[in-house]
Amino acid sequence: MQLTANNPNRKSWLHVAVDCDFPIQNIPFGVFLTKDDIITIGTRIGEYAIDLGALHQLGYFEGIPLTDDIFMQDSLNDFIADGRITWRLVRNRIADIFDVNNQKLQANQAHRDEVIFDMKDIEVLLPVDIGDYTDFYSSKEHATNVGIMFRGPENALMPNWKHIPVGYHGRASSIIVSGTPIIRPCGQTMPPDASKPVFGPTKRLDMELETAFITTAANHLGESIPVNDAEEYIFGMVLFNDWSARDIQKWEYVPLGPFLGKSFASTISPWIVTMDALEPFRCESPKQDVEVLDYLKQDRTDNAYDIKLQAFLETENGDVNKLTETNFKHMYWSMKQQLAHHTINGCNVRAGDMMGSGTLSGATREAFASMLEIAWAGKKPITLKDGSTRVFFNDGDNVIIKGHCKNENVRIGFGTCAGKILPSK
Amino acid sequence: MQLTANNPNRKSWLHVAVDCDFPIQNIPFGVFLTKDDIITIGTRIGEYAIDLGALHQLGYFEGIPLTDDIFMQDSLNDFIADGRITWRLVRNRIADIFDVNNQKLQANQAHRDEVIFDMKDIEVLLPVDIGDYTDFYSSKEHATNVGIMFRGPENALMPNWKHIPVGYHGRASSIIVSGTPIIRPCGQTMPPDASKPVFGPTKRLDMELETAFITTAANHLGESIPVNDAEEYIFGMVLFNDWSARDIQKWEYVPLGPFLGKSFASTISPWIVTMDALEPFRCESPKQDVEVLDYLKQDRTDNAYDIKLQAFLETENGDVNKLTETNFKHMYWSMKQQLAHHTINGCNVRAGDMMGSGTLSGATREAFASMLEIAWAGKKPITLKDGSTRVFFNDGDNVIIKGHCKNENVRIGFGTCAGKILPSK
Repeated sequence: MQLTANNPNRKSWLHVAVDCDFPIQNIPFGVFLTKDDIITIGTRIGEYAIDLGALHQLGYFEGIPLTDDIFMQDSLNDFIADGRITWRLVRNRIADIFDVNNQKLQANQAHRDEVIFDMKDIEVLLPVDIGDYTDFYSSKEHATNVGIMFRGPENALMPNWKHIPVGYHGRASSIIVSGTPIIRPCGQTMPPDASKPVFGPTKRLDMELETAFITTAANHLGESIPVNDAEEYIFGMVLFNDWSARDIQKWEYVPLGPFLGKSFASTISPWIVTMDALEPFRCESPKQDVEVLDYLKQDRTDNAYDIKLQAFLETENGDVNKLTETNFKHMYWSMKQQLAHHTINGCNVRAGDMMGSGTLSGATREAFASMLEIAWAGKKPITLKDGSTRVFFNDGDNVIIKGHCKNENVRIGFGTCAGKILPSK
Repeated sequence: MQLTANNPNRKSWLHVAVDCDFPIQNIPFGVFLTKDDIITIGTRIGEYAIDLGALHQLGYFEGIPLTDDIFMQDSLNDFIADGRITWRLVRNRIADIFDVNNQKLQANQAHRDEVIFDMKDIEVLLPVDIGDYTDFYSSKEHATNVGIMFRGPENALMPNWKHIPVGYHGRASSIIVSGTPIIRPCGQTMPPDASKPVFGPTKRLDMELETAFITTAANHLGESIPVNDAEEYIFGMVLFNDWSARDIQKWEYVPLGPFLGKSFASTISPWIVTMDALEPFRCESPKQDVEVLDYLKQDRTDNAYDIKLQAFLETENGDVNKLTETNFKHMYWSMKQQLAHHTINGCNVRAGDMMGSGTLSGATREAFASMLEIAWAGKKPITLKDGSTRVFFNDGDNVIIKGHCKNENVRIGFGTCAGKILPSK
């Protein structure tokens, strides 16, 4: 099927500012609440949210096999479960409806009033009911940095790291949408040189700049997904902040991995950008250092996406400080490899499952994607515009992740993934 | 509210064999499929499954505030979300309905035909839609055994173990109900003395004899549950086999914990036995060796339950070999402490979440609760009735976990949690 929605020459009759993340070539999917307290599935063009439930009721998806209530839901799970052909038909149709050369909706003010909302009049909600959430650890630079800090440069990468896209199960219940405040978590920590643990708010609250992908139903229990089929099952991507309490994590994580150091909150951006929209930004993946086992061997080399990622710290005075600038394309293990690995044991993947990339650090300090790395475990504080310093985050800090792709024709972005830190209760 | 359902003198007009796990004092909750392909919530008395949806439609729950369709669902989640008072009202009412002195249903053959099924005519299904699954590691004997094998007797327990109920997030999608076959998982392993990993079916397929508890909605994100309130949020318990592929687990688990070595399948027993039914079997918990932080301090000492647990290996010739006999009461960390710890960072717990105990090994080999421990990492094979030996499980092995409580008055049991191993696909 042609991805006509990707036509870079298309213009919308809705205003889209230069350098907006949401031109008519994007057409992400999300869930929002209108000021009339109606929850609906929608998309976004420019500074407008589009009610797909209303569009469907008005007949604009005629000819596409969709159940009547597919968009009148509080999560995208059922739509995602409809599969790739349906996603493409719907996205192409939305592009047509909002094409400047199409008068049908454009000229129908009554319909426009039902369907189109100013972004400032709606509230974005969590777009999916996430059944299971897995976090990978697929940036070589991040794994190396953390390894150097904990084990020294000689043993930085674990022996399994170049053979396996290492990952672990995370907590789904505490995944929240951008804008939800982050309450500084309390927990048990073992202070340096102490003889017994203490209780209190974390002193090392950190971000992890990641992306995550959302799957459709991919396999039955006991089956696996071949690596070269894996793309069929990836609906789209979001920005992801895997908030981490480093002191809690350090004390708890041996031998079974991160638990309460992560599960207090994880923030995603509200609009799921489809893999189809990202297709023009496909690029070469890093060459892998070691030959992988057959089930991880890919039949093409362009399995990465050129997504520019930035994190900012907005202090309470309104200053915005850039913390890092990195790129998704550095990720050593591809999403296809992650999904193939995840299912190689027969583990079933469902519509609405989410898989995080792991912290997407680049090679230099300017591209490190957690405060743990940027301030090197507290040893190299950063100085902000207001003269204050940080090694981890303070209460009142608003941490904002942004991401976009851009070429000579079009910019496809994710908007923001933000969370402001509130004091412990 | 009085737990009148627990009256040990009550008899049912339904036949219950001596030493049956499901006398009228039990009244567990589950979900089953009738031969007419209807899915309903039910309970079990003796060898009968009771359709609670039909009972409710016929008016037998009159006076209890329940939505009309509360039992006509494919999971217990909504009923569990109704909370403890409702669970108790319903369980007490069921005891009344099936009391030998109550003629109402007993004497109404038409209603009986609608409501009561022979167990052999129904199929039990997964009783809850598990949102998040956490597995703890709360048996000191198990953690010590594993520690000795991997690190030697001096450093068997990690420094955090006596301060924290150590746990990790598990995979919810692959939790299955007793009777579902287990397909031997494939994966990546690093053989001893090899220079690179290999791919193939696991050679070290193991059980972990555990129990698990199911929660109701307990807290909002950012709040925690005080340890002495935690019982309010525990609906009931099931038997749990946390199947493990030890060779896959060993190669993958550093540094982020178990992943594909566990996520291929986890089996639970179909009937959730309520904490109310288990109340008569409350007993003293093990005294904790080290003073815990305040948020883990309990205001009573009888936080354990005397649940006898056994595992059997049924070979293809029909022989049943006892593998182990242990008891839930040895668990070092109580379920209350596990739940308080899980939420101390503000992590939200929802109705239908499941938390495993960890492998419930006792002090001696006869009470070890995994083949890893029973056969001491392959060094001490066990000999079966047919003369064959095992260090881990073979294809065709049916692994059966049973559990029950018993005092002079009553026996409350869980039935079985079984899974037969099939060859890799």
